[in-house]
Amino acid sequence: MLNKARQDFISCDSDLQSAQIVLFGAPFDGTVSYRPGTRFAPKAIRGESFGIETYSPYQDKDLSDIKVCDLGDLEFPFGNPEAVLKIIEDTSAEILGLNKKPFMVGGEHLVSLGAVRAAAKKFPELNIIHFDAHTDLRDEYLGQKLSHATVMRRCHDILGDARIFQFGIRSGDRPEFEWAKSHVFMNKFNLNNIEHALDKIAGAPIYMTVDLDVLDPSEFPGTGTPEAGGVSFEELRRALLKVAETGNVVACDVNELSPTYDQSGASTALACKIIREILLSL
Amino acid sequence: MLNKARQDFISCDSDLQSAQIVLFGAPFDGTVSYRPGTRFAPKAIRGESFGIETYSPYQDKDLSDIKVCDLGDLEFPFGNPEAVLKIIEDTSAEILGLNKKPFMVGGEHLVSLGAVRAAAKKFPELNIIHFDAHTDLRDEYLGQKLSHATVMRRCHDILGDARIFQFGIRSGDRPEFEWAKSHVFMNKFNLNNIEHALDKIAGAPIYMTVDLDVLDPSEFPGTGTPEAGGVSFEELRRALLKVAETGNVVACDVNELSPTYDQSGASTALACKIIREILLSL
Amino acid sequence: MLNKARQDFISCDSDLQSAQIVLFGAPFDGTVSYRPGTRFAPKAIRGESFGIETYSPYQDKDLSDIKVCDLGDLEFPFGNPEAVLKIIEDTSAEILGLNKKPFMVGGEHLVSLGAVRAAAKKFPELNIIHFDAHTDLRDEYLGQKLSHATVMRRCHDILGDARIFQFGIRSGDRPEFEWAKSHVFMNKFNLNNIEHALDKIAGAPIYMTVDLDVLDPSEFPGTGTPEAGGVSFEELRRALLKVAETGNVVACDVNELSPTYDQSGASTALACKIIREILLSL
Amino acid sequence: MLNKARQDFISCDSDLQSAQIVLFGAPFDGTVSYRPGTRFAPKAIRGESFGIETYSPYQDKDLSDIKVCDLGDLEFPFGNPEAVLKIIEDTSAEILGLNKKPFMVGGEHLVSLGAVRAAAKKFPELNIIHFDAHTDLRDEYLGQKLSHATVMRRCHDILGDARIFQFGIRSGDRPEFEWAKSHVFMNKFNLNNIEHALDKIAGAPIYMTVDLDVLDPSEFPGTGTPEAGGVSFEELRRALLKVAETGNVVACDVNELSPTYDQSGASTALACKIIREILLSL
Amino acid sequence: MLNKARQDFISCDSDLQSAQIVLFGAPFDGTVSYRPGTRFAPKAIRGESFGIETYSPYQDKDLSDIKVCDLGDLEFPFGNPEAVLKIIEDTSAEILGLNKKPFMVGGEHLVSLGAVRAAAKKFPELNIIHFDAHTDLRDEYLGQKLSHATVMRRCHDILGDARIFQFGIRSGDRPEFEWAKSHVFMNKFNLNNIEHALDKIAGAPIYMTVDLDVLDPSEFPGTGTPEAGGVSFEELRRALLKVAETGNVVACDVNELSPTYDQSGASTALACKIIREILLSL
Amino acid sequence: MLNKARQDFISCDSDLQSAQIVLFGAPFDGTVSYRPGTRFAPKAIRGESFGIETYSPYQDKDLSDIKVCDLGDLEFPFGNPEAVLKIIEDTSAEILGLNKKPFMVGGEHLVSLGAVRAAAKKFPELNIIHFDAHTDLRDEYLGQKLSHATVMRRCHDILGDARIFQFGIRSGDRPEFEWAKSHVFMNKFNLNNIEHALDKIAGAPIYMTVDLDVLDPSEFPGTGTPEAGGVSFEELRRALLKVAETGNVVACDVNELSPTYDQSGASTALACKIIREILLSL
Repeated sequence: MLNKARQDFISCDSDLQSAQIVLFGAPFDGTVSYRPGTRFAPKAIRGESFGIETYSPYQDKDLSDIKVCDLGDLEFPFGNPEAVLKIIEDTSAEILGLNKKPFMVGGEHLVSLGAVRAAAKKFPELNIIHFDAHTDLRDEYLGQKLSHATVMRRCHDILGDARIFQFGIRSGDRPEFEWAKSHVFMNKFNLNNIEHALDKIAGAPIYMTVDLDVLDPSEFPGTGTPEAGGVSFEELRRALLKVAETGNVVACDVNELSPTYDQSGASTALACKIIREILLSL
Repeated sequence: MLNKARQDFISCDSDLQSAQIVLFGAPFDGTVSYRPGTRFAPKAIRGESFGIETYSPYQDKDLSDIKVCDLGDLEFPFGNPEAVLKIIEDTSAEILGLNKKPFMVGGEHLVSLGAVRAAAKKFPELNIIHFDAHTDLRDEYLGQKLSHATVMRRCHDILGDARIFQFGIRSGDRPEFEWAKSHVFMNKFNLNNIEHALDKIAGAPIYMTVDLDVLDPSEFPGTGTPEAGGVSFEELRRALLKVAETGNVVACDVNELSPTYDQSGASTALACKIIREILLSL
Repeated sequence: MLNKARQDFISCDSDLQSAQIVLFGAPFDGTVSYRPGTRFAPKAIRGESFGIETYSPYQDKDLSDIKVCDLGDLEFPFGNPEAVLKIIEDTSAEILGLNKKPFMVGGEHLVSLGAVRAAAKKFPELNIIHFDAHTDLRDEYLGQKLSHATVMRRCHDILGDARIFQFGIRSGDRPEFEWAKSHVFMNKFNLNNIEHALDKIAGAPIYMTVDLDVLDPSEFPGTGTPEAGGVSFEELRRALLKVAETGNVVACDVNELSPTYDQSGASTALACKIIREILLSL
Repeated sequence: MLNKARQDFISCDSDLQSAQIVLFGAPFDGTVSYRPGTRFAPKAIRGESFGIETYSPYQDKDLSDIKVCDLGDLEFPFGNPEAVLKIIEDTSAEILGLNKKPFMVGGEHLVSLGAVRAAAKKFPELNIIHFDAHTDLRDEYLGQKLSHATVMRRCHDILGDARIFQFGIRSGDRPEFEWAKSHVFMNKFNLNNIEHALDKIAGAPIYMTVDLDVLDPSEFPGTGTPEAGGVSFEELRRALLKVAETGNVVACDVNELSPTYDQSGASTALACKIIREILLSL
Repeated sequence: MLNKARQDFISCDSDLQSAQIVLFGAPFDGTVSYRPGTRFAPKAIRGESFGIETYSPYQDKDLSDIKVCDLGDLEFPFGNPEAVLKIIEDTSAEILGLNKKPFMVGGEHLVSLGAVRAAAKKFPELNIIHFDAHTDLRDEYLGQKLSHATVMRRCHDILGDARIFQFGIRSGDRPEFEWAKSHVFMNKFNLNNIEHALDKIAGAPIYMTVDLDVLDPSEFPGTGTPEAGGVSFEELRRALLKVAETGNVVACDVNELSPTYDQSGASTALACKIIREILLSL
Repeated sequence: MLNKARQDFISCDSDLQSAQIVLFGAPFDGTVSYRPGTRFAPKAIRGESFGIETYSPYQDKDLSDIKVCDLGDLEFPFGNPEAVLKIIEDTSAEILGLNKKPFMVGGEHLVSLGAVRAAAKKFPELNIIHFDAHTDLRDEYLGQKLSHATVMRRCHDILGDARIFQFGIRSGDRPEFEWAKSHVFMNKFNLNNIEHALDKIAGAPIYMTVDLDVLDPSEFPGTGTPEAGGVSFEELRRALLKVAETGNVVACDVNELSPTYDQSGASTALACKIIREILLSL
């Protein structure tokens, strides 16, 4: 019989109605002035996902046990970041309105802002757990308010002090590090103190955002902004699991894979495993 | 509204029932001993197809005017060429049984044999128009009967003498060239004499198979077997149009793109345009 | 003696005051939704320029005989095309104000709009000679007015009918080709009729814009939008010379090289030679 | 004097008769449906071997102290895995018949089956020490019995329960992990318990097979199946040494390098060092 | 039976004594200051040679009909060009002393000087037929007398005026073009007038040197110095045949392939065909 | 206002007179017989430097607090290593004569010899701290005295016994390791005992040379000689800081980055951070 071939992230072929989690791609990298390429990530991740197994020997769970709907990629007008964020916010809001969890695959980190806007509207007590090599706390970058380098500052505009928890940070300018001291919780260089953050959050809803460049470039070269001195896959995997196991993650994203710089495919494969492990633990 | 994103070859989003042409991918390169990679072609072609226009200024026609259904890719057991050919033959036969035209995107050239088997069963008077740099007329290759290097010889097993018309041939071993003299029509080095061939065929059904390495490697580097001294896009485009305009093409394939060797994407884009031009002229 | 090493385009080391031509880079590709990379072109072109000679055996002239000042690259806020165009317009206007010729190296084709705005202000009778594979005549693209796909339409907004002369066009959507018939002069597929255009222009000032994808991808694979069936280096070189020899070119740009897709460096080297030939003939 | 230049793996230029170890390449990857490329490994390894030293500071030994004959690469009919395995089995049997040790360089992991067949015939008490990221214990893969994903299951068909010892395993489907519990010894995620395995084997002959993807992709990106969370070069080097020092290894292979995904050459160089260290310790 | 696998250029497996032609690699690019890589050419050419046929449909001849011995690659001390040239001269002299024809595969163009020294010693009436994009006539380059950019000037030091015939030249500095007028025969831009040159030479011995960058970079991107506006494979093939058919070629080289810039392998494959066609016509 | 754009290493835009440190590129790799490419490092490092921050969260210092002058790249005659070393020695001597610190960015490791010659002339008590995977202690390599493989032996010719301290060494031939025992201090495999070395040096002037291949290829694949089993960025960063904090480093170099093998750019970015950290600590 002639059937259309599958093209979702592996095993995420549930229909929208029965899905618990709704995955979608946000292939935008329009504010990146240096090395673009994250726009290609969602498609690359879907393609590569058939190279990993649906079964996790870490959690002894299988993607076939849960229901995920992969919507495919959103379509964006490059050159207009505000319009892009609006599309993401609307999509996320609609998913949240169905009492499902949005799982966004970036794209550059700015895309998180659209989803955070939607989540903060539904969950005013929202906290953000943020894994990243960079602070992303500039107020402006090259004269622009909306940028991959300002995204966490814009989230702070919405949520206010003491609601953003950053881990693995090892790059930024001096004023960002200064500003951080009185406005966010920042754990430099590694992922220690994750339990401390979860204690502070104490059951409030969590938006978890994973900038994959938090990983060491040896394990994750596929990024436009490689920062030596990062964390390992094992460290990240364990930290993500701790956050997810609270049961309070209401939305999530994984971003900043740039397949352009992933000649071996190892970074894309790693991103697939991170997504699988999060999906299985949510 | 939350809708699944499109993933077909551009504008080939008709449903099966209303389609005139049914496109499918045959991502197999399992008999290639030297430089594999054509298995990646159908997916690459779909992705790149959104970089070309649906409108052809050559023919002043638009893909939106016709109905094509893209089935996606067939799934194959590598290491078992006979099983692969069976899957292709069954798919092609089913499409032909619906009185639609199969349009296969390879894959290595051996995949043509599966579709030719199906077409020859329905159309016993079938002729083959074959564009290629290579004769593909060996009887065996490394001890195997089924190989990209033997595919036209296997087609001859089915159709017999004077039914295969080859164009652009510029590589093969000496016995192949000798054998060709008494069994097929071979036009070496260029695409001259295409009208002569069409006269001979005289209205009988045609299977058109395009090994893209018939093109000069300057215009089409994306192949595992680049052969200097080939024809140009313009020459091929015109020849394909002449064949298609007879109205007798009952099935067709385009094969041997190897995205692995297409760093610039120019070969994949060219393949997309060739497919568009054929689709619009069938 | 300790001196700073040279970093300009080869032999373009004149100071601003004594220069006849002022070259600058416009490394912007922010409206490109598909395959970015032209942002890297100006730096790549400067680096590669030391691989070509300053002497042209075609014109029997040498770059050391003329005075060109290379300003380096402008710095842009990605994600804000209007701000980018303003920077380009101001730079071009300042150069024109010194009675020198701006020579811009893109970047995506949208950058031309900034320089055309400046040139049209100083020369209200301005005409555009446009070499390109694409019409670039859409009124909107993905909902945006400012895009590489709309740039010539925006120029038409400024200059009006019968002032834009297009050559080598072979891709666009159907409405663009329709619209072109009554608003611009379009020579499809090749560079014929260039004298005809120059006759029509009859001594009025000319802005010459070269989208390098007018070349066949075999000779110029280094572009995000390869279109088979293009013109050769020799054809382009001769056409450019004809335009330049009128003595009426008041500003000029060369754009759309994407070093990302130029693995061999041949496209970048070709761009350098095109720039050398134009500089020597202006 | 005019002499032929050397082309063996560095310093493995002994003639067959005097060699203790006989190295040969098995450039086959014909059952790989996803990302081929291991067929290029043996040639790449030979070429790169001249970039490492013959002296090991780890063992304070030098390749010039031992006698190895490099036979070059076997020639295979792609598309016929059974015929390929027959060629490997015959070659291995002939080497074993001369009371020398076969050292095979793959190729995909399926090639191990040919050598294991030969070794098990000569040494009925054979045990396998297996380093890998994947279980390779499926009974069928895409309907086929012979596949890189089934190779250890096929070895189990020959050797039976409790004769296969697996290390570093971190990927497979759920049934494979279930099946493993009662049929093989599996050490997940790391190389611990290697002494435990050697104790169990207790002096019986050992076939050692190294799928290099057991390494973390950060150190070994050059593979078609990168699995994050692997072991380090140092860990693997020490484990291999422990096995070799038992003096019971009768045959050995190193496989699954895919030079296609090794842009930097670091994976190929690492494979060379692993081969050197094993050769020196056998 | 256990035999060493073949590693010569395809079908060039004759022993030295019975060979008519002796092929060897000269993997040197030590004077190239810009983009190195030709050192990798001889090995790449041998590997790729198994992808072409031994039979030429152009000449209806087969490599199996002639006797060629491939010596492999010479080993060079990088950083000492004079020592490198000495090794090449000695090797060439030894081959010539056996009344065989040396066929050198470069490497950068400077390697020709070593072989020309040997040939001019045996054949004082030697002429050079030189295919190239560049004049190579500088007297010094960066203060050095021995360089890829001075090689033809050094040959002129040996042979004197009117003995060097250059074809396809399209790049050099102004003084080189001036100097050429009174010392060599130079045919700019194309391969016209080859018969004229052969008439002048009138049966004297010929050294034929082919710098592959004479080809257009569209057909031959694999070079460190791509020069747009070159000749086609067909044009070069015909010109080489004319020279070879004089029967007066006593030595020959093919150089300047840089596999580093040949992502698709098309340039290496073309080089193989050029070598095959020359071997068959000598 | 029309200003020239910046092209120095980020924030190293001081004029020569006021600078404390003078940085320059030494883009030479002419003695490398195997895989060239380090000639491209200085330019790549400058370009990539704009992707890192000027602020170091490790040291809480910023490049804007110090004065560094980037001279750009020296220009070298390839094929003449002695002339190259003379240029480097003269440049270094001139900088030292101004009582400033030379900071050289290679290039292959041989370039260190030029700077060491200058430093040893001014500081006869000079010691060398040498980070590297390789001993570089051969007396000759392929018959040459001047080579990347002999550079530390040549330094020993100048400084004598017990003045060179090597760290991270894990490759060399047996005689080198033997010779080292009585002539230099060698710490194999890791960076332990750095304090021990600094104690021995006891305040004497230090030349610090960093061959980046001391790093593990997982973190630093961008080198022509990847050696598995290396140290981490963190380990190297800490060791460099210890040396710099003595206040006795009078000159320094960082070498052996080969951008050719750094597809992701992660190695180049790491090199930039290493340079930033050293600059901030000198």
